[in-house]
Parts: sequence; C-alpha cells; structure tokens
Amino acid sequence: MKGLMQDTPLTLVQAFVRAERHFADRAIVTATTHGVERTTYGQWAARTRRLAGVLTALGVGADARVGTLAWNTARHLELYFAAPCTGRVLHTLNPRLFPEQLAYVINHAEDDVIFVDRSLLPVLWPLMGELPTVRHVVVMDDGADAQIPDDPRVLDYERLLAHAEPLERFEVADENAAAAMCYTSGTTGNPKGVVYSHRSATLHAMATMFVDVLGLRESDVVLPVVPMFHANAWGLAHAAPMSGATLVLPGSNLAPAAIAALIEQERVTLTAGVPTIWMALLPELEGRDISSLDRIVCGGSAVPKALSEGYRKQIGRPLLQAWGMTETSPLGSVAHVKSTLRHLSQDEQADLRATVGIPVPLVEARVVGTDDNAVQPWDGKSQGELQVRGPWIAREYYNAEAPAETFSEDGWLRTGDVATIDAESYIRLVDRTKDVIKSGGEWISSVELENEIMADERVAEAAVIGVIDAKWGERPLACVVPAEGVELSVEDVRTFLEGRVAKWWIPELIEFMDAIPRTSVGKFSKKTLRERFAKTGPPVG
Amino acid sequence: MKGLMQDTPLTLVQAFVRAERHFADRAIVTATTHGVERTTYGQWAARTRRLAGVLTALGVGADARVGTLAWNTARHLELYFAAPCTGRVLHTLNPRLFPEQLAYVINHAEDDVIFVDRSLLPVLWPLMGELPTVRHVVVMDDGADAQIPDDPRVLDYERLLAHAEPLERFEVADENAAAAMCYTSGTTGNPKGVVYSHRSATLHAMATMFVDVLGLRESDVVLPVVPMFHANAWGLAHAAPMSGATLVLPGSNLAPAAIAALIEQERVTLTAGVPTIWMALLPELEGRDISSLDRIVCGGSAVPKALSEGYRKQIGRPLLQAWGMTETSPLGSVAHVKSTLRHLSQDEQADLRATVGIPVPLVEARVVGTDDNAVQPWDGKSQGELQVRGPWIAREYYNAEAPAETFSEDGWLRTGDVATIDAESYIRLVDRTKDVIKSGGEWISSVELENEIMADERVAEAAVIGVIDAKWGERPLACVVPAEGVELSVEDVRTFLEGRVAKWWIPELIEFMDAIPRTSVGKFSKKTLRERFAKTGPPVG
Repeated sequence: MKGLMQDTPLTLVQAFVRAERHFADRAIVTATTHGVERTTYGQWAARTRRLAGVLTALGVGADARVGTLAWNTARHLELYFAAPCTGRVLHTLNPRLFPEQLAYVINHAEDDVIFVDRSLLPVLWPLMGELPTVRHVVVMDDGADAQIPDDPRVLDYERLLAHAEPLERFEVADENAAAAMCYTSGTTGNPKGVVYSHRSATLHAMATMFVDVLGLRESDVVLPVVPMFHANAWGLAHAAPMSGATLVLPGSNLAPAAIAALIEQERVTLTAGVPTIWMALLPELEGRDISSLDRIVCGGSAVPKALSEGYRKQIGRPLLQAWGMTETSPLGSVAHVKSTLRHLSQDEQADLRATVGIPVPLVEARVVGTDDNAVQPWDGKSQGELQVRGPWIAREYYNAEAPAETFSEDGWLRTGDVATIDAESYIRLVDRTKDVIKSGGEWISSVELENEIMADERVAEAAVIGVIDAKWGERPLACVVPAEGVELSVEDVRTFLEGRVAKWWIPELIEFMDAIPRTSVGKFSKKTLRERFAKTGPPVG
Repeated sequence: MKGLMQDTPLTLVQAFVRAERHFADRAIVTATTHGVERTTYGQWAARTRRLAGVLTALGVGADARVGTLAWNTARHLELYFAAPCTGRVLHTLNPRLFPEQLAYVINHAEDDVIFVDRSLLPVLWPLMGELPTVRHVVVMDDGADAQIPDDPRVLDYERLLAHAEPLERFEVADENAAAAMCYTSGTTGNPKGVVYSHRSATLHAMATMFVDVLGLRESDVVLPVVPMFHANAWGLAHAAPMSGATLVLPGSNLAPAAIAALIEQERVTLTAGVPTIWMALLPELEGRDISSLDRIVCGGSAVPKALSEGYRKQIGRPLLQAWGMTETSPLGSVAHVKSTLRHLSQDEQADLRATVGIPVPLVEARVVGTDDNAVQPWDGKSQGELQVRGPWIAREYYNAEAPAETFSEDGWLRTGDVATIDAESYIRLVDRTKDVIKSGGEWISSVELENEIMADERVAEAAVIGVIDAKWGERPLACVVPAEGVELSVEDVRTFLEGRVAKWWIPELIEFMDAIPRTSVGKFSKKTLRERFAKTGPPVG
C-alpha cells in the first residue's frame, strides 16, 4: 500500500524560492578589496534569474557542467543556484590544487564554461590550452589587477548579466538529478568526483537546521570561512538561503585579522572552518566585541581539546566540532553534549566536545575491524574503520576508472578514519587508517600524540607521522612548530609528554619547523611530510 | 546526469533506530489513573520489537491496517513504530467520532486488528458486529474498569508481549510506502482517509526540528496535549524519538489541572494543543513553577490575539501559533516574528503572532480568488482560498468514491480557508470558505468577529455563524459564553464591539450559552450551531 502524498521533489529550487519570497530583505555581505558590498536575497534572486538567462544565451547544455573558480562571494552564490535550478551541474574548482590536478578535474568533468574570479585568472588561464571542453571563461571582476586576456572566449560577468533575460520559471523535476560536483584530492591517484543530487543537497541543508546539528535559523548571521569550493561550504551555501540567514562572505582575504573584523562588524552568530583557521584566529579576537558569536563550527580534521577549551575560556564559547568529508556532503556527526550528560565535570564535557560527536539524523555509523572485517561493539574501546551511510553520502565516484575501495560491498562509505564509538554514541577518531603508527606490534595514534604535544602552550602546531624503524617496525616522528618567540628543545617536548602518554609513545624523532605544510583545503599535509622525510631520512632526535 | 548519492530511503525506521541507539536513556512518561509511569526509549524500543513479533504471530498481513483506539501513552507509541517499521499501516481512530463514523472508517480502511485502551472498549465493542474485517481486539489495560468481554477475539496486550519473539530487523525499502492513516471528519459526507508515507512522515518530523518551526531537540521535554489519534499528534510522535526528546504523555486525563501539574512536575519545555485547551489552562498555571516552559504550540483553529497576549503577560511566553490540517501532516506554517521585524512595537508583534505565520520550509502557499480562480498578490489585502503544496501534503484520499474537490487540478491542496498573505509572507486566515458571512454584498469574517468578542474579559468563548436574513442575505449570529460569574446582556456585547469592528458587522443576534459545542478534535463545532439554529430559527436579539 502506497502513501497518498504529493510527489513534490526535493530540489534546490525550494531553497531558492524560499529566500526569494520570504526573506527578500535579509542581507548577503561580501568582503572585497575595496570594502564590504551589501546585497539582499531579493536582489540576489533577481540576478540569479538573469544569470540563468546568461547560461541559456551562452548555449550551456541541459545538464552541462558549469565550473567555478571563485572565493566566497555573492556572485559565487548566484552560480550556486542559477546552474542547478536550471538542470545544469555546478562544478566548484579548488584553486589550491596543483595545476595538473586542476586541469585533470576540469577535463574529467568536461566543464563547458568556467566562471572565474579575476584574482584567480592566473591560476586558470595558463591551463586553457589543455582544456578542450571549455568554451567560455567568464570573468567576475573582484578588483584584482590580473591581466584579462584579449580572447574571444573571455567574457565579462557583469556585462553578460546586464544584457540577460531573467528566467521566470526555475524547475527541476527529478530530485535525483545532479546539482553539484566537487572533486576530492585523495592521497593516491587522481582526484575523484563526488556528485551531489538535488535530494542530497536539500536533505543535508535541512539537517544543518536542526538545533542539535548547527541550528541554522533566520536570525543567524553566517560567516562561512570554509570555502564555497569545498563541499558547498559545508552545505551552508544551500542552508543559509533555505533558512533565511544572512550570509557574510569573506572573499579572498582569509587573514585572521580580516575574519575577526568581519565577525565584529557584521555581528556574526555562526562561523565555520578548519582547526588551523581557529588556531590563528583566537589571538585576533582579543579586545573585540564578538558577543554576537554563538556557534564556531570546526571540522576537516580533529580539533585539539586545548584549542576548544582556549575558546571557551577566552570568549565563553567552545568550538563545536563536526565531522565529515567531501563524500558525506559533508556533515556526518556533530559533538554536542547531550542533556543527559551535562552533570559531568567541565573537563569531562570538554572531552566529549573533543570527540566528533554523534551521528546527524539520517546518518548511520558503524566501526568495522580492520583485521577481521567484523562490526565492532559500541564500547568506546574497540576500534576499526569508521563507515557511514545515509541519503547525503556518496555511493560511487563520477566516471570512476575502477570501483573504488572507498565503497563497501554492502553499501556503506569507508571513511578511512580509524575510530571508536562509545555507549553514548560518541565517535572518537583514533587516526586516519593510513596515519596510524604500528610500533613494536602496538598501535600509536598520531592524532592523539599531536594533540598532547599541542597541549603545551609553547607549541603552535604539531604533526606526527610514522617512519620506518629497524627495531620497532615504525616509530613516530613529530614535526613541531614552536609558539612565536619560544625556543624549544627535543628534551622540552619529551619531558612535557611524560605522564601524558604511554612511555613508548614518546617520540625520539622530533623535527622543528616554521610551519606544517598544508593541503589544498588547509589541513596538515602528512603526505608532504612523509615525502620530505622519505627523501632525507629521519633526523636523529 | 544523475547524482551519485546513496539510495537510502526516508523511513520511520531511521527515527526508531536513532532513539534506540543514541537516546536509550531518555524518558517516556505516561500519566495513568494510578500515577505516572516511566520508561525509556531503550525499554520502549525493546518492547516495540516484541510488538512487531506479536503482529507477525497474530498473522497481521504485510501491509494490513493496524487500528488503534488509544490515548497518548507509551504503548500507543510502541504501536506507532511496530506497525510501520514492519510495513504495516497504523490507523489511528478518533474515539470522539460518532459510532456510525467510527464503524465507517474501520470498515473503509479494512482494519485487520484493533488495539484499544481498556477505557475506550465501551466505544469499540458495541460496534464489533458491524466490523467484518477486524479479526482481533487487543486490550491495553489502562486501569479503567470497563468490562473485558469473554470472547476469543479479545486478547491482552501485555500477555501477548510477554510471549513474543522480538524482531531484530526493521526495514522498509520503499519510502513511498504507507506508514499511517488518519481520517478527517469533513462537514459533509463520510470521513476521508489521509495516508501518510514513510517519506512524508520523516520529512515532516525533520521540519519540526528546525529552529524556526518548533525547534525540537534532544534536551526538550515534549507534552503533546494534541491526541496521537489526530494527525500523529501533529507529528510529535515521530519527531520526539528522532530528536531524542523526552515525551510526557497525558493519557486519558486532559483536564486543565492535570495538564498544569504535568508541566510543572516533569519540567515540560514544549507543549502543543488546540486553543480551547490553552483557554482553559491559563488560570491553572497561576502559582505554579512552569519556568521550564519555552514553546506552547497552538493550532487547529485561529488563536485569539488576546489569549496569546494573556500567556505572554502571565507567564512571559506568548502562544506559538501554527497552522495545518490532517491533510498537511499537519504543519504548514508557523508564526514566528522574523528577526527583521523585531523593531516593531510589542502590539504589532502580537499581531504577527496572531497570524498563522509563514510557510514551513518545503511547503509553498498561494491564495486563489474564490470568484476568478486567479492567484492573488501578496499584499495583505487580496483574499481567496489558501492552497498549499509540498512533500507532506495529501494528493488524494484513500479509496475515494469520487475525485474530491479538495485537490486542485494543478496539484495543490485546497484548504477551504479564506486567507490573505502579506509582503512579509505572513498568512492571515480570514475564515473558513464555508464560514465566511456575506451580508449586504460585503464579507464579514466570522473568525475576526469572534476574536473581537473574545477580547472582552467578560467573555469566555464566542462562535459566530451566518444565518439567513431576508433583507441582507445573511447576518452574523454570535454564540457567547460569559466568563464565570459574569452576567452579560446583548447590549453589553454590542457596546463592546463599537469602534472595534465596522458598524454593520455588529450582530443583532446574540445567543448566550454555557459552552460552545465541540467537534471530535476539540474545535468549536459551527456545524452543530448551524444545525441548532436552522431547526429553532434565529432568536430575536
């Protein structure tokens, strides 16, 4: 027997129309080189309908890929809806990819047109000779002084918009149609394309609106520091219009002082980014009126407890840790302290907030033993690979050359994270499957060791990798960035760790450096560290 | 091009498993004749799995209808998931229906088995001779003294559960499968069956979790005064397990003093019911510690502004008005004051809260002229029939004898409400299409007139209907219940209305009575009033 409800598809058209009709007065603020630009959802919606007309005028096909190489701006948000709400597929490009990777993903997705911020033209233009599918490059002038090539393929965004016919009817009939795609840069092989559907993007946006997830609401002022080229700014680029929240978009300047000033001036209530952003931001918040700030969402890699507690002590708000990946849209779990656990001590609650939390509604999680492939009990001890499933989790990669081992045979996503789940459903990431260190037959968690090293106030950053050791198989090598103005010795680090971790975890190999190398999405790049120390061999600690 | 996301169906299994796994410690509290009974989601889930075993043991077919005639109790919540999570269809029966209507809906749905509270056996048992499809009556002993018939069809709930095999695997493959059904008692003809799907129930539960809807969350303590036999207790019976909120279920005793005591003792944060409940409750709250109470959701019929303001003044919280119907699952709109309108005066904000608010995400609304069938502008003035569409709104009735005029040709639900929508998207109900009064060629809103009469502190309740008038076509007749201990004259009422409504709205016909008759779901029954005054003829005012 079937239900007798309307067959309304779940599409981004609903989020768009909702912002246009119900929240026309709410603001979209974009930081630019020449100050802050303000628009409203009403004006944005009118421009987005014109942009849809531009896509048609340019002959962009029914489900063609529309590439974007852009910062977080109102124009980028226009593309975010003009493409999918007309059946096309938004393909966000990461400007921090290596040139050959960028060319690879554009060619693999067969992008028909690329919209590019003028400041990012120097990243794209040198590749044009290798991009046979790209018919047009539309430049969004953000005031940068990059030379605009005199080439018939190059068009100006505002000029096109000025002459466009607005499209009155946005409609997508099939909720399983592709809405957007984003490539994930694996540690091995070529980047892989994740294709979000209208259904998955809509359900994911709804999830961000739950109080126990991010609680996005109309009265919010949302500053996504996380880039719009990275998993749809964690879905905030869809959820803000759906909920009517004001958006504050930082443009190209992600310097801590610039972010801090935006939070203060625009009375931001919710912001989201990776731990390295929050590490750099905290000192900048001192002395500012940031009383509006309610939720600081932290994801992308494990947040050190010390950092979250630093926020709680300085500004009265701990970080809200969330976990996810490009393949999970990305929200998979969020670390709120359950009401039933608020009797715990402040320190115990901080421990819970330093986990990646409990699964978001509609997402299921399990931990599967890496040796025996058996589902592990939720006892907080048994560890294995974290696997997830749900309606906004990828089931395969776009035009994959071979079936990826990322997807289990019974339909779960293999995250590559080693984790435990406790009886209260809190997930703790032990390590990446490939980062965990096996020393003398026992496991060392590189993440836990990093966190303990970073708990030392004299340390700014730390990353730990495994290096081959003749006696123990592997030993940890710690790469440490001392805090500004601090002189630190190997013995200082080792002494600090005594009593904090098991004795045999304490690394003999410690390398001091000015900065930990970053990946294209701002995480510590252990791949780079491994390559560096594979070439030079481990130093003697 | 298709998205490449997992095909996870949206089903109530997800809400069930979520409560079972993540919120096993959260409480379900049921008020009974012998005090409060406490259980947890963990214990409830275990019993629900046993109950699924009972359904199989009783031979209840794959998608058979499982009838329930029950108050808001933990047992009823077991049925709420055991039936749909095994592919069967929960059919909630309204004990306040007339016996012939009750027999009609049981036969129309072809209920295979009926689970009945012992206190409601006297409603069901006399009908058994007319219910050929009902093979079993399972009695849930709530301590009432109703005689349990000595009949092989009659079984005891707890005895069945004690001997049942728990079902380990709950699974529903098709999200469009029927999950539950509820008949709506129209003013004409037989009741009509609304069939909710797993998809619609899940999406609707998600919507209740948005901050700008009801904001349901894990830390909530939810008291649904609205019955579970009425549109799934406005979806709270699905949303509470999904969000992990504690449920406080009032059983059969809905007396204001009992509800007030539950709110105080259980530290209720969110409660929901029809205006008549809140009218009766307010005096009972005086002197109690109800500081936990955060949201008092009011729906089912228009809430008088004076009542909502009464709550705001006495307990610091206005009523949160929501609009919907059985056909809309029911949430269609909610009256929060937007952040952009909080500069308005307290009184202007109270006016906004007295509207039915703006549409819930995924629900679209329009107003269609009753004369010209044209979509009306959102100007706050143009009125017509409110029509809605969305993924939890009915598209047809179950096995309808004829296509119902409830459904427009282009797929919208015709609500039968006359409404306006203003530029800020606030919907104001002018009247029911059939209640609006046409006097001398002009419209009088019976709802607005009632609200103005009830703004008089000397009035407890008022309902206005149209009666035939030789000169004017129709004139309003006001049925008025004076406040306790108050003597009220026709002239008192007329004088109070002077200056509050147009002169020609002031009724000449005023009938005093002890109580306004109620429908089976507790609303004012204008149908009964019309019948009464059709028979006796209008009194001379």
